[in-house]
Amino acid sequence: MSISLYDISIPTYRRGLQNLSSFLDKAETHAVAEGASLSSYTEARLAPDMHPFTRQVQIACDTAKGGAARLAGVEAPSMPDTETTFPELKARIAKTIAFLETINKDQVDERAGAIIELPIPGRTLTFPAPDFLMNFSLANFLFHVTTAYALLRAKGVPLGKMDFLAGGQTMPA
Amino acid sequence: MSISLYDISIPTYRRGLQNLSSFLDKAETHAVAEGASLSSYTEARLAPDMHPFTRQVQIACDTAKGGAARLAGVEAPSMPDTETTFPELKARIAKTIAFLETINKDQVDERAGAIIELPIPGRTLTFPAPDFLMNFSLANFLFHVTTAYALLRAKGVPLGKMDFLAGGQTMPA
Repeated sequence: MSISLYDISIPTYRRGLQNLSSFLDKAETHAVAEGASLSSYTEARLAPDMHPFTRQVQIACDTAKGGAARLAGVEAPSMPDTETTFPELKARIAKTIAFLETINKDQVDERAGAIIELPIPGRTLTFPAPDFLMNFSLANFLFHVTTAYALLRAKGVPLGKMDFLAGGQTMPA
Repeated sequence: MSISLYDISIPTYRRGLQNLSSFLDKAETHAVAEGASLSSYTEARLAPDMHPFTRQVQIACDTAKGGAARLAGVEAPSMPDTETTFPELKARIAKTIAFLETINKDQVDERAGAIIELPIPGRTLTFPAPDFLMNFSLANFLFHVTTAYALLRAKGVPLGKMDFLAGGQTMPA
């Protein structure tokens, strides 16, 4: 049985973004219940030299968008980092999911043998497409989704592991 | 070009565990330099109802071990959760990597069409093998590796994104 590059990539990004959006919903509900300001969440950091929550969400979106675009061989739409509020962050996530939905399965599957080039400061990394997904893009994406989750947990938002794995839990029935 | 279930799974777990072990090395060096006690790291939590660092490392190991065993169709070795110190945690990681290295490529690749059963409280989830990896096991594994990283970053350990993606960065040259 052959494994589809599309199936292991685009739905994985989408599920992570949907979960991330539901973290924001729960955070809003919690903030209202606790009388907390949402800006105390959006500006929260785990360490002074780590990115705040807002940026974690933006980077999660960019990683999914950029990863999907490279795998599909298309240009990623530009999304300037202007969000400061929860509704704006949710709109950014929704816009990123909408981009993922423009990518079709054949477009990605036919590139399972493609070489992906990733410019980083000072050099360009090259990866076979499945290695780009597994060694770089997905780890980077899940890093930022997890860090966003951790920041909200540290603020007392009632999230659990099943919120993080939710798409995985419900999908296979 | 066909995608190998082994290639997208076992090396991904191994790389994550190797990175996790290197976080512990950097944490030890930092603790010595700062005169901090390592138990303030092993017992650290991001929220009162989240697992402490020690448990994050143990669960990362279990997720890799259990995921690899299910994909290969073998029994995972038992590893009781007795670790309390950094050397013990590093030994646990090394033992888990050693188990991953007993699994050969054909053993996993020939199970790309297998159905994986995962008992959870109250029911059993079933997944095609690639979906088990992408929808459940890998997200769960990277969650715990990221949370361990976050706990050390919150303690001031000088880690950066490239420590997290290190295997991915060096592998493709």
